[in-house]
Amino acid sequence: MKFRVIAPDGEARAGVIETGRGLIHTPQFIPVGTVGTVKALSPAELREMGAEIILCNTYHLYLRPGEEVIRRLGGVQRFMGWPGPVLTDSGGFQVYSLSRLRRITSDGVEFRSHIDGSLHFVGPERAMKIQQALGADIIMAFDECTPYPATYEYALNSLRLTTEWARRCRAVHREGQALFGIFQGGTYRDLRLRSLEEIVGIGFDGYAAGGLSVGEPKGLMHEMIHFTGPLMPADRPRYLMGIGDLLDVLEAVEAGYDIFDCVMPTRNARNGTLFTSEGRISIKRTEFKEDPSPLDPECGCYTCRSFSRAYLRHLYLSGEILSMRLNTIHNLTFYMRFFRLMREAVLKGEFRGFKERWKKVLERNFNRESS
Amino acid sequence: MKFRVIAPDGEARAGVIETGRGLIHTPQFIPVGTVGTVKALSPAELREMGAEIILCNTYHLYLRPGEEVIRRLGGVQRFMGWPGPVLTDSGGFQVYSLSRLRRITSDGVEFRSHIDGSLHFVGPERAMKIQQALGADIIMAFDECTPYPATYEYALNSLRLTTEWARRCRAVHREGQALFGIFQGGTYRDLRLRSLEEIVGIGFDGYAAGGLSVGEPKGLMHEMIHFTGPLMPADRPRYLMGIGDLLDVLEAVEAGYDIFDCVMPTRNARNGTLFTSEGRISIKRTEFKEDPSPLDPECGCYTCRSFSRAYLRHLYLSGEILSMRLNTIHNLTFYMRFFRLMREAVLKGEFRGFKERWKKVLERNFNRESS
Repeated sequence: MKFRVIAPDGEARAGVIETGRGLIHTPQFIPVGTVGTVKALSPAELREMGAEIILCNTYHLYLRPGEEVIRRLGGVQRFMGWPGPVLTDSGGFQVYSLSRLRRITSDGVEFRSHIDGSLHFVGPERAMKIQQALGADIIMAFDECTPYPATYEYALNSLRLTTEWARRCRAVHREGQALFGIFQGGTYRDLRLRSLEEIVGIGFDGYAAGGLSVGEPKGLMHEMIHFTGPLMPADRPRYLMGIGDLLDVLEAVEAGYDIFDCVMPTRNARNGTLFTSEGRISIKRTEFKEDPSPLDPECGCYTCRSFSRAYLRHLYLSGEILSMRLNTIHNLTFYMRFFRLMREAVLKGEFRGFKERWKKVLERNFNRESS
Repeated sequence: MKFRVIAPDGEARAGVIETGRGLIHTPQFIPVGTVGTVKALSPAELREMGAEIILCNTYHLYLRPGEEVIRRLGGVQRFMGWPGPVLTDSGGFQVYSLSRLRRITSDGVEFRSHIDGSLHFVGPERAMKIQQALGADIIMAFDECTPYPATYEYALNSLRLTTEWARRCRAVHREGQALFGIFQGGTYRDLRLRSLEEIVGIGFDGYAAGGLSVGEPKGLMHEMIHFTGPLMPADRPRYLMGIGDLLDVLEAVEAGYDIFDCVMPTRNARNGTLFTSEGRISIKRTEFKEDPSPLDPECGCYTCRSFSRAYLRHLYLSGEILSMRLNTIHNLTFYMRFFRLMREAVLKGEFRGFKERWKKVLERNFNRESS
């Protein structure tokens, strides 16, 4: 994997990650394909909307169908029929958020599957082995996700564990996959700095901020984003994990972050919340009952080219599968377009204006939603 | 609407129905798009697999979003973004099979919605008015579906009601839509003949056998199919409603039936039962866990071109939306190909051989399934 920054614009930057399976232009959004499919979409549709990389969850694929099955079938990209690069997370976050009866020791985490309750143990070596079998282009070091709120002592301990595990991941890393390190530190500036320094000291192909968007207030999240971004190595991709609210993304790109993943556009789509250039809308609203216009006249996606708001409302209320498909196509296309425009703004040195313009749109939408 | 028979082959025949929205080559299978979408598929996918006409259920669209909404949005074809012709049933069958507290009088049927329990009344005039608002290319007269078993007396009464309602439908029919009549008669030969004669006496653009595949033994169904097919007017399309098991279709095409609709390929797909040229398979079977081969090597659909059996099994077990999509694409493509090959066989005067060959395949599959 190679990375180069093409254009800086303040702390913001546009760059390119080169992988064996294709380029990733940054800033870039990574759609989430949890169990090996971006919910409701085909790989062909993802390609058409300009997706360059997909994230798959190690935790889910480890539990089902099992990493060895995927290895024998030629790796996760071939398994899911996706021609581009894939990133797998380490599983740490899902253990933290999904599993039961978690017991953390210095060797790893014991947990019960959310599917069948079976008992599992995953530590840094095991997490690496699973990700090597899955064969993604970019893999992540195994970390302990610091929750919020966390005492200083807890965050410090979590930081130490994360550093120790990162070192062990590095030790068993093999050529052929890029390995990113994750730093923690909770919401404590000194711990964030210390964690980042320790992780950078070990040396990885890219760096990721973990443990944000885990319940902390937005202001605190933004503070951490702006504090950490400029401290991260400039010559490596900077990844803000699990964050995809576009207001947060604007802050993070301003702070120099490059890549993002989040279930927001896809999950919202399935729940009928749709992003448009005029604001977020809930497709079930009565006012759309006989509305013949496209969801977003400024959007060129299959959904907006082919169907009316009235039809989308009908599909949603009827609980039809096509509703989730068409909504997901639209929301992800919206995200892809937003990131493309943002990248162009950075390349032109116009990110500040882009941010101010979109912030107003996105904030207006929030108000509209709560009214 | 125009219809011409191109080639007879015994009682079997190949023909073409001309509608303002495109040709329908017979024998033809009509995918079921219950509420205005063939479950899990986009219109573009239906086009790609060669679908020529879609069926929508009047009962469902009447209840939601309401026929007037669809009329104001330009008709059901435009509403659902389907560029070809649409056929709507009369609603009679769904009232019979889905609704509660049904009360049948000579004027129509009182029933409660399966969605919200609200009370509705639909008779022949109302059914026609609803279908006129929906604006399908082919619409159906309102009938009373005779259940099985039914006494001779019940079947006779049902027949009389169906004739009376057909006459009233004919009376309020307007230009611009083809209107098909439905005959009943249960499993009584003399009543089938009488019902057909009465319906043909009124005069319709096409004729449909109703009240079959409602629980009667296969042998009795086939007897009724072979008895009625040759008695129906040769210069009009012959429609066997709700039947799509390919073994039954073979009998019906042999008897001279032209068009068919059924939820079998789409519903089976969602349940993981897939048709292949080697037999039906249940995709969840353990033997497919690491099977890298396509579902059906002889199939050229998107699913078979792009994914392994192992991936399809994984998607199914994970309850993923993409599972239902890919399975539905495959099963419907299989049906479309089967009908295309069957039509070519009729055109070449080789239907008998086609039937014997496929009957063996399809019967073998049934045995395999039950073993």
